[in-house]
Amino acid sequence: MKLTEIVHILEEIAPPELADDFDTGRIGLILGLEDEVNRIAVALDANSYVLKKAAEMRADMLITHHTLIFHPVNIISKPLAASLRIALENGISLYSMHTNYDRAEGGINDVLATRLGLKNIRTSEIGRIGEIKPCSSAELAAHVSDCLQTPVMYAGEKDEISKVMVIGGSGFRNEYLEIARENGVDAFISSELKHDILRTHEDLCLIDATHYATENPGMEALCSRLRRLPGIEVEFIDQPSGLLAVNCRLDRNKVALDLNEGKEACKQEEPGKESLEFMLEEQSRNQIRSDYRRSLGNENRRRYLE
Amino acid sequence: MKLTEIVHILEEIAPPELADDFDTGRIGLILGLEDEVNRIAVALDANSYVLKKAAEMRADMLITHHTLIFHPVNIISKPLAASLRIALENGISLYSMHTNYDRAEGGINDVLATRLGLKNIRTSEIGRIGEIKPCSSAELAAHVSDCLQTPVMYAGEKDEISKVMVIGGSGFRNEYLEIARENGVDAFISSELKHDILRTHEDLCLIDATHYATENPGMEALCSRLRRLPGIEVEFIDQPSGLLAVNCRLDRNKVALDLNEGKEACKQEEPGKESLEFMLEEQSRNQIRSDYRRSLGNENRRRYLE
Amino acid sequence: MKLTEIVHILEEIAPPELADDFDTGRIGLILGLEDEVNRIAVALDANSYVLKKAAEMRADMLITHHTLIFHPVNIISKPLAASLRIALENGISLYSMHTNYDRAEGGINDVLATRLGLKNIRTSEIGRIGEIKPCSSAELAAHVSDCLQTPVMYAGEKDEISKVMVIGGSGFRNEYLEIARENGVDAFISSELKHDILRTHEDLCLIDATHYATENPGMEALCSRLRRLPGIEVEFIDQPSGLLAVNCRLDRNKVALDLNEGKEACKQEEPGKESLEFMLEEQSRNQIRSDYRRSLGNENRRRYLE
Amino acid sequence: MKLTEIVHILEEIAPPELADDFDTGRIGLILGLEDEVNRIAVALDANSYVLKKAAEMRADMLITHHTLIFHPVNIISKPLAASLRIALENGISLYSMHTNYDRAEGGINDVLATRLGLKNIRTSEIGRIGEIKPCSSAELAAHVSDCLQTPVMYAGEKDEISKVMVIGGSGFRNEYLEIARENGVDAFISSELKHDILRTHEDLCLIDATHYATENPGMEALCSRLRRLPGIEVEFIDQPSGLLAVNCRLDRNKVALDLNEGKEACKQEEPGKESLEFMLEEQSRNQIRSDYRRSLGNENRRRYLE
Amino acid sequence: MKLTEIVHILEEIAPPELADDFDTGRIGLILGLEDEVNRIAVALDANSYVLKKAAEMRADMLITHHTLIFHPVNIISKPLAASLRIALENGISLYSMHTNYDRAEGGINDVLATRLGLKNIRTSEIGRIGEIKPCSSAELAAHVSDCLQTPVMYAGEKDEISKVMVIGGSGFRNEYLEIARENGVDAFISSELKHDILRTHEDLCLIDATHYATENPGMEALCSRLRRLPGIEVEFIDQPSGLLAVNCRLDRNKVALDLNEGKEACKQEEPGKESLEFMLEEQSRNQIRSDYRRSLGNENRRRYLE
Amino acid sequence: MKLTEIVHILEEIAPPELADDFDTGRIGLILGLEDEVNRIAVALDANSYVLKKAAEMRADMLITHHTLIFHPVNIISKPLAASLRIALENGISLYSMHTNYDRAEGGINDVLATRLGLKNIRTSEIGRIGEIKPCSSAELAAHVSDCLQTPVMYAGEKDEISKVMVIGGSGFRNEYLEIARENGVDAFISSELKHDILRTHEDLCLIDATHYATENPGMEALCSRLRRLPGIEVEFIDQPSGLLAVNCRLDRNKVALDLNEGKEACKQEEPGKESLEFMLEEQSRNQIRSDYRRSLGNENRRRYLE
Repeated sequence: MKLTEIVHILEEIAPPELADDFDTGRIGLILGLEDEVNRIAVALDANSYVLKKAAEMRADMLITHHTLIFHPVNIISKPLAASLRIALENGISLYSMHTNYDRAEGGINDVLATRLGLKNIRTSEIGRIGEIKPCSSAELAAHVSDCLQTPVMYAGEKDEISKVMVIGGSGFRNEYLEIARENGVDAFISSELKHDILRTHEDLCLIDATHYATENPGMEALCSRLRRLPGIEVEFIDQPSGLLAVNCRLDRNKVALDLNEGKEACKQEEPGKESLEFMLEEQSRNQIRSDYRRSLGNENRRRYLE
Repeated sequence: MKLTEIVHILEEIAPPELADDFDTGRIGLILGLEDEVNRIAVALDANSYVLKKAAEMRADMLITHHTLIFHPVNIISKPLAASLRIALENGISLYSMHTNYDRAEGGINDVLATRLGLKNIRTSEIGRIGEIKPCSSAELAAHVSDCLQTPVMYAGEKDEISKVMVIGGSGFRNEYLEIARENGVDAFISSELKHDILRTHEDLCLIDATHYATENPGMEALCSRLRRLPGIEVEFIDQPSGLLAVNCRLDRNKVALDLNEGKEACKQEEPGKESLEFMLEEQSRNQIRSDYRRSLGNENRRRYLE
Repeated sequence: MKLTEIVHILEEIAPPELADDFDTGRIGLILGLEDEVNRIAVALDANSYVLKKAAEMRADMLITHHTLIFHPVNIISKPLAASLRIALENGISLYSMHTNYDRAEGGINDVLATRLGLKNIRTSEIGRIGEIKPCSSAELAAHVSDCLQTPVMYAGEKDEISKVMVIGGSGFRNEYLEIARENGVDAFISSELKHDILRTHEDLCLIDATHYATENPGMEALCSRLRRLPGIEVEFIDQPSGLLAVNCRLDRNKVALDLNEGKEACKQEEPGKESLEFMLEEQSRNQIRSDYRRSLGNENRRRYLE
Repeated sequence: MKLTEIVHILEEIAPPELADDFDTGRIGLILGLEDEVNRIAVALDANSYVLKKAAEMRADMLITHHTLIFHPVNIISKPLAASLRIALENGISLYSMHTNYDRAEGGINDVLATRLGLKNIRTSEIGRIGEIKPCSSAELAAHVSDCLQTPVMYAGEKDEISKVMVIGGSGFRNEYLEIARENGVDAFISSELKHDILRTHEDLCLIDATHYATENPGMEALCSRLRRLPGIEVEFIDQPSGLLAVNCRLDRNKVALDLNEGKEACKQEEPGKESLEFMLEEQSRNQIRSDYRRSLGNENRRRYLE
Repeated sequence: MKLTEIVHILEEIAPPELADDFDTGRIGLILGLEDEVNRIAVALDANSYVLKKAAEMRADMLITHHTLIFHPVNIISKPLAASLRIALENGISLYSMHTNYDRAEGGINDVLATRLGLKNIRTSEIGRIGEIKPCSSAELAAHVSDCLQTPVMYAGEKDEISKVMVIGGSGFRNEYLEIARENGVDAFISSELKHDILRTHEDLCLIDATHYATENPGMEALCSRLRRLPGIEVEFIDQPSGLLAVNCRLDRNKVALDLNEGKEACKQEEPGKESLEFMLEEQSRNQIRSDYRRSLGNENRRRYLE
Repeated sequence: MKLTEIVHILEEIAPPELADDFDTGRIGLILGLEDEVNRIAVALDANSYVLKKAAEMRADMLITHHTLIFHPVNIISKPLAASLRIALENGISLYSMHTNYDRAEGGINDVLATRLGLKNIRTSEIGRIGEIKPCSSAELAAHVSDCLQTPVMYAGEKDEISKVMVIGGSGFRNEYLEIARENGVDAFISSELKHDILRTHEDLCLIDATHYATENPGMEALCSRLRRLPGIEVEFIDQPSGLLAVNCRLDRNKVALDLNEGKEACKQEEPGKESLEFMLEEQSRNQIRSDYRRSLGNENRRRYLE
């Protein structure tokens, strides 16, 4: 099949005009090599691991969600050189669909909502809002973890969650959370939850299900869909994030660790504190000396440091 | 004690000139009310929860790591109005120390390194590098979780980690990770780990120990330190993040959940897939129709959608 | 009455889309507190004096022409803290209408034109153009001073003025004066007349009737208009500018002042000049010295300074 | 004398490096024509009036405080063409000294302070601070009016003013007023006082003595100073601002004006109000109609407009 | 004829809305003097040479392709003063038509294409594409040189050129060359060919026929056209570029030059090389010394310099 | 030899701190591949032609004056892909030295001055000034053409040129020409001479000797210099510009061309003019029609078009 034909099909699946403005130069045909395409690889990222796999499967096109070069460059770094070399030597054209595919019908967010079993799914800006059988925050977190096969972090205990908004990738942004709130959403599922968002949206159950796990399904689905193209082989390259969660000891049923010295160090009451105390003492002593030099007559301040 | 005297002491603890440029307007005396200060509250954030607690303890000054107004405003939102009202009605001055206290001797990052039991701690840019008794990634993650009493997410399996770099808060930035690498660091502990960082630093063990848990100790330590000031009461206001981690089912020993319908939906092989399939089928049918209208003669493309 | 209802009414009176671009963030609901509004205060400015008066009259909403925070802030200055405290403690919501109300039908400029007794008033950009019974510049200045009860400054002697353009507030801008000229206007009434405008529009009679006196009537009129709202008390808070004009001695009929020493000092011919002479002599002597050092051989220059 | 020699002398009087950054391109030799200079004209502004006078006196150089072209141009407007023509035809070079001469020893602000009879004058940033025999705001305003032979506007009644800060031209800026306050200044004398400055500095006596009257003396003094140059004739071109002040009627002892119709119109209680009322009624009627169309069921709002 | 009438006619010939954005302030009436115009001069540039000629022919208007002031100024340089003086003293209004006249029907590029004898001319963006009788690059270059009476530089040997794109002035820009390529153009004729353009478009024959020679005909044509205006004399002022081409010796049939010493110096093999060698030797010796000081132990590097 | 060692040597030859600010990201190691370098290629440009040659000679490093990617990219164009592929597949690291090497001792401009046989060469900003045996513009142009084996274009006839300034590459900039003038230079030799420069520097002889021919010698010299490095083979890759000059017919002794039809077309007096006339007539007719519709009553204007 012609590369240009495939590009047209991809533009129908994820129309470029749906992309955010900042995606200019980050979507579409990033590197166009061979005119004829026989094998397509689909993956989340364009990096040397994925390109190596694509080369092994003799792909002549790689379609990813994240582009190869995010910020424009005029110096080719070592990792970029490694990726480019594989692409160029193996004639692998690169095509990227990002926020246009997030928003597209059947794209990242539609697939995510479906994968989580949401009902009555509807689009609201870039995200999707849907319903689930009422459950608690802990139950929903476990459900998300199961469905996406991923560790999750969550906050915001709720007893009865029935309406959920999802955005694959880095979707915890004030404007999207505001939309969620206006729509009576109980829980918001996305990734890369930041501290200030957590603090200002405590009324919602916020579930961080990792960037990888919320976007990868959408790329898998794209892969399935492209398999229907005639005369083309399409294969998915999975590159798991490798992320694992650890709960603090109370939740971990006091699992015994072979790290005794370290553990001792962090029993809140003693040694950690002591060494901290020591450090502060030391620092105070230094300050006293410099204070002494600087502000000899300043009784008040000197006293505090003694 | 005079507010101005306290400000001078705080400027010795966290010299304003140590702050990043972007912190202009975000550190120092954010709101100056009463000249005489008798009770100081210390906390991580300046928000209505913390201010309410500060008012209850009759504090007339609140010192935080994160300022009240991050982006300059000329419209006062509801949450900001709530916080400001408490501060103004109760005469609570606000003082903020951010990246200057991160960098300062005895500041956020020194305290974090000490709390984690690191040895031979030294400063490298904003972070701290130190040594631990050799352990694996899993062990270190558990150790961090224990020491900071926090859930963590981590990636990058390593068998023997002995050198660690720590940065409280959002420290997973390329330039800092580069410094870590140049210093032969095995593991990097910070928070708000993003996907692209994870992908480009797979050679390191990366431990996301949450923004709250990596910075809160530094503010607690500041509190202890200020307690030595004469004639002033100082109290810490803790506002835990409430974050909890959930590992995916394999790791959770198949905990039974009362969310059966949902769970069914996400057994990868069946219903989730089916409904996804359905959605894609539906979408394909729609596309066929629009294709039909748009490009009647285009055989190749129409066939793929059937 | 509901705050939101009042906001809708105010948006009909002064549609936000009429505002200049620079007014973004400076018009509309600046601080929204109580949902139910019973008493409205109207004033020109939002400052602590006005807010104190509003609190005394138990207003729960203050509508002003000038907003509380002009340039966005993240540090709360003392005066801003004072104003905010009164507003927050007394539950006074703040609403601001600026250039949108200048332009609006029945707004600042319509009221100003009417107050000055102009006939056949029509709108031209933000201003209003109308006719008066022919008079000289001095007569018109006195008329304006009477009508607005304000001191004025004016320039541009004309014997017969019959067409006038008015803009409340700081309206002496080249583009508006150009419009005036194109419309055959004889006199332009506004405030905050600057030197370069004065110099480049000497063909027009320019009357500076102060910012306060040209805008306050429009806010009074708004007050009267809102009084017709059912179930709401509305009151105007006047805060005169306190400006007074003094003409130079010739015009003041040699009023005797108890400031004899000072007066002596400024008799143009003698002491002022003398002390000035002295200063310049002194300075010259200093220059000679530095010249001497710097450019010993430069005969010409040194001679001039001797 | 050579033009370049004169330029060097002027650069000693007003060193270019003293100028504000925004004066780049606005100071120094703006137009350099004849190498030999025999007659210099000095004035406040460079415009066609001044240039005509300079040509009449056969000057071959004009030194002004305000430059000919403030904002860079590539289209020559009619007034600029008129000025340029006179300069070019008559071989009049143009030199401009602005904020550098404001700051310079013996410059605009030194001369202004001296002219006002201040004692113990010292420099603070661009302005000058000095002492006067204690007097009230009204007395000081009259004194300033006398000394500078100008109408003034003032605000801020004070009984005993003894410390004064002066800045010629447009000096009412927050940072300068802050400096005044920090120096215990009672009155601030400058020009182009704006409403927001007036409102936020009510603790100070603020005297607006016009741009012209506060800067012209400095240029006259420069003229006297240059007269000492050998073999050069130097003459001052005065272009008064023509500004006149009018106080409101109460202060003017009810001067009878031949503008009866107009006056009637502004008797606050009656006709002006009536026509305003009429206008508002009219407007309300229009609104009712549009309201009717737009929001038929909205009882509350419609009622208010009836 | 009225100046305004002429301006309207010129705006019909070269509609201002056809201009590139960067031409804002560079087209239209740049200097408007006399209302009545009797004699028009037309030229390529507005400079003192052209203005002197225009004054000699008693023109009261000068129409040029390039404006008088390209980058906005607030300082009048000597050359600008010279030009302005002539224009102002002789009452010569200035009007400029630039990229609007390039694009206009019958403008610079239409005239250029016609002058070169192109057939089937059509517009493509700013340029014109047309056909010629097939010829080689050398033949076309000679033809262009003949038609425009100009030296040319060209690159890109082709045997059979039949389709040509032309843009007067500085038209060798990637986007225009891309248009040329998309239209199957063999040769591109414009001026100010830069090295990077030459390197990236080696598949095209590129002919640099000088800025002057490619634009002057369009201004001559404008002149002819304006001659039809009633009651107006119109004259063209030609200011040739004076450019001459010299081919390297091989192409010049070894023309004997009276510059023997110089020539010796550049016989590639000997003296030039020698002196170069000497310079490099000298430099190496210096480097060795500084190397010696800086990196005494660095064997490898020192050796290379010996 | 180690790549890092070579980089250090290159940084001594052309210290990066000598580069213009705009060269950030355009100099230094642009692509670093193999640690060990055995063969270096040197060339003017980094493009696919040069890289192919470098690959053929088995170079593992290419040093050029112009970098591979001038404007930062995140999309890899076809030509860039071609170049990158050769570099990556053949392990050719890229290093670029631009304005730093122009300025460096023994760099582009020193070599150019020496190659032209200048005496008493000294540096002035980026360029070099030197002396030649007095000659005319034509003689100097021929000399330059000989020495650099390049066609040249020149303007500014002078009888006796003895002082010359040279800048390789695109050096005809006002600031450099001003330096030349201040140094009493008679002729300025550089490349890419633009029309506005030509017009404003008619007092100088300006010789455009092409970008290639003025910079290539500097790179050849670098090559010779690097040949002295131990254990490294260094080779120069020449890529001539292919530029040829053609003088207009008068100067070409009426060389007969086989392009008769075309030639006919450009005999100024006849057919070209005629077809131009025709076009203008046609256009006028169209304008009349549109004029007729638009401004029926406008007699004056319609008449001119008839």
